[in-house]
Amino acid sequence: MEKTLRELAELVGGEVSGNPELFIKGAAPLQSAAEGDITFITSPKYAHLLKTTAASAVIAPPEIKVKDKDLIVSGNPQLAYAKILTLLNSRPYTAKGIDKRAYIGRRPRISNTVNIYPFAYIGDDVEIGERTVVHPGAFIGNGCIIGNDVAVYPNTTIMDRCIVGNRVIIHAGVVIGDDGFGFARDGKRHYKIPQVGVVRIEDDVEIGANTTIDRAASEKTWIKRGTKIDNLVQVAHNVVIGEDSIIVAQAGIAGSSILGSNVVLGGQVAVVDHVKLGNNVMAGGQSGVTSDVNDNEKRA
Amino acid sequence: MEKTLRELAELVGGEVSGNPELFIKGAAPLQSAAEGDITFITSPKYAHLLKTTAASAVIAPPEIKVKDKDLIVSGNPQLAYAKILTLLNSRPYTAKGIDKRAYIGRRPRISNTVNIYPFAYIGDDVEIGERTVVHPGAFIGNGCIIGNDVAVYPNTTIMDRCIVGNRVIIHAGVVIGDDGFGFARDGKRHYKIPQVGVVRIEDDVEIGANTTIDRAASEKTWIKRGTKIDNLVQVAHNVVIGEDSIIVAQAGIAGSSILGSNVVLGGQVAVVDHVKLGNNVMAGGQSGVTSDVNDNEKRA
Amino acid sequence: MEKTLRELAELVGGEVSGNPELFIKGAAPLQSAAEGDITFITSPKYAHLLKTTAASAVIAPPEIKVKDKDLIVSGNPQLAYAKILTLLNSRPYTAKGIDKRAYIGRRPRISNTVNIYPFAYIGDDVEIGERTVVHPGAFIGNGCIIGNDVAVYPNTTIMDRCIVGNRVIIHAGVVIGDDGFGFARDGKRHYKIPQVGVVRIEDDVEIGANTTIDRAASEKTWIKRGTKIDNLVQVAHNVVIGEDSIIVAQAGIAGSSILGSNVVLGGQVAVVDHVKLGNNVMAGGQSGVTSDVNDNEKRA
Repeated sequence: MEKTLRELAELVGGEVSGNPELFIKGAAPLQSAAEGDITFITSPKYAHLLKTTAASAVIAPPEIKVKDKDLIVSGNPQLAYAKILTLLNSRPYTAKGIDKRAYIGRRPRISNTVNIYPFAYIGDDVEIGERTVVHPGAFIGNGCIIGNDVAVYPNTTIMDRCIVGNRVIIHAGVVIGDDGFGFARDGKRHYKIPQVGVVRIEDDVEIGANTTIDRAASEKTWIKRGTKIDNLVQVAHNVVIGEDSIIVAQAGIAGSSILGSNVVLGGQVAVVDHVKLGNNVMAGGQSGVTSDVNDNEKRA
Repeated sequence: MEKTLRELAELVGGEVSGNPELFIKGAAPLQSAAEGDITFITSPKYAHLLKTTAASAVIAPPEIKVKDKDLIVSGNPQLAYAKILTLLNSRPYTAKGIDKRAYIGRRPRISNTVNIYPFAYIGDDVEIGERTVVHPGAFIGNGCIIGNDVAVYPNTTIMDRCIVGNRVIIHAGVVIGDDGFGFARDGKRHYKIPQVGVVRIEDDVEIGANTTIDRAASEKTWIKRGTKIDNLVQVAHNVVIGEDSIIVAQAGIAGSSILGSNVVLGGQVAVVDHVKLGNNVMAGGQSGVTSDVNDNEKRA
Repeated sequence: MEKTLRELAELVGGEVSGNPELFIKGAAPLQSAAEGDITFITSPKYAHLLKTTAASAVIAPPEIKVKDKDLIVSGNPQLAYAKILTLLNSRPYTAKGIDKRAYIGRRPRISNTVNIYPFAYIGDDVEIGERTVVHPGAFIGNGCIIGNDVAVYPNTTIMDRCIVGNRVIIHAGVVIGDDGFGFARDGKRHYKIPQVGVVRIEDDVEIGANTTIDRAASEKTWIKRGTKIDNLVQVAHNVVIGEDSIIVAQAGIAGSSILGSNVVLGGQVAVVDHVKLGNNVMAGGQSGVTSDVNDNEKRA
């Protein structure tokens, strides 16, 4: 897809400086951009790269003066770049329906605009919304409800009765709704406590490859709108993660802990069970969070 | 399934206080229980929740006085709860046999009471016991022996010649029997040391989602009876874990280390290679165990 | 396969001491070796085990005197052992071709010496080299290029356009080419930055079970020749790992960090984003690498 600099500036609410009719066909970082691409710069410390980039245009903040390039001036160049790259990479969606080598259980409530690939397994009483894509090897258990425009990548597993909102991205190998780790003890042996709750994933959540999200002992494990979870993260039973949070790779959150909105957990952070983290809490990479944390506090 | 309070008290060896003919149809924690449910309390610090719970009956220890509720008095309310919840959630098992979209290798020795789902792959010379369920996308390699009443959840991989006991639960995405990480070096490059051993999982073990258990370099990696392993745990080649141990999520145990019985490793614990942990050892979350630990010792 | 001690000594460049015509049929460590096996010893501290081993022959360095056993004397007994075990365990490769229950996309460029198992999914425009084996449940996305003699184990996922060299071993559950974790922020919500790069895996790399390797934001995430990665490792977008490096289980490398050749990261190590580790750098288990590290330095 090709767009003019003017069209792209309108998309991102920026201003053109230079030739508004310049055609842009791709977007790439400074060092990998080719002719015809637009790139972006966020900080003066990378300004020297402007001399050597092959990009035909640059998204820059007002405070960085760029010579010899057509520009989009934007207060948030990275966000503008994300929006432009998304547009230029978008392809028209084609609904191919359900491949005959997929397995579909009884009483399906599946939109006819889906793509369900070979070797996907859909249990009984499953609801799947518009334009949702279920890749090969994905398993969706009985009674699951999956929203619109969801991507269920290969070899993911969503166990029975879990609920997934709209525009959720579930990367390969993710497991949602496996049993929480709950046992009672008779002094000698461990007896399994049945995990009869579910997992609820709200709209616009993204879940990284091979991450695991346990079903609740009862009620639900709950990931709220807009939260982004990286790869190999462990979310235990009855955890709640608020909106727009960021959980970096290999972090782990133990049972029943409650995280607020806009929380950031760095890589390999561990949060113990039954603690409460307020809104905007940040925990640095490899840190251990062993008690409640108030709003806006940092742990490192 | 509905049971009377008397029947449930008999099941758990407790005593009814109140109406023994009260019908109970579910079990849930204090805050999520509904009318008709039984709940439980273990500590006086939650006694205030008894006033607001909708539960019709409570399992309580003798030292907690509960008013206005029918009771089962039990010395171990959590264990009683686990047993009652298991009973009330149990469904009769129906053997559906082998789905025609599953792949079964040569010379199968598979009970006719199994459930083997579409897209499960069973290699040659595999033995599978009574009432074992193999979910979609599961892979069981050549020569494996799988016991009775085993749950092999979706997208798990059990490589050749591994041995799994009875009543083992293998959650989605688990890998059992991949190669141990063993290389010889010529001063410059790494040469793979073939990993020709196996993995043996004893009875009543549970293995959490996306956990990996390497096959031994020779002989066996060995998980003994009743041990429970959480999600995303790494168990390296030739490790031995004793009976009734608890390994919390994202812990890792390096090659050839030997753990005793009733060991507890917290989340993200790392145990180095070639060490020995005695019985009843506990290691706190994120700790590193870098040397032998005697029976009953704690590391934090 | 059986070989004489003389043949094995020639294979590894060692010298026979004892009977060169002795037949050897297996190889195993000191404690598990049986009659007819060859074993090895690397350090005098294990010399006492020579008295009890059932092995018929021993690979030993010149400085260890072994009595009553036929020997191969070698400067690097472990390497000799690896080579001998590889030989004795090798089986002739049989090309069975593409199983009819696999799915093959359009315009395949697949060698006729491959083995592609049931329930493997190969996308469009995929190239697969000689003697490569694709196990059940593996997913290979559109436009991927996979070399010769590659093992793609069950339930692995290789997303679109990734490139895998020759003799690469990809263990079960691995995800290659899922999206990097990249978002732009408008002050409130996170916007996905499309991850349009790829992953390139060079020759002789091994990747452990359930490890995840993100595709680049642009250009490539790059694992160079001979590097060995253990289980449950996270490699983020645009990371480069040099040749012959060792990354132990549960380590994580954040975005755009560059590792040199012959680097060793211990288990659960975290490397932050945008740092540079020189050649021969070693980081001890559970350590955090938060800044650049020069060649040959150690962090613990």
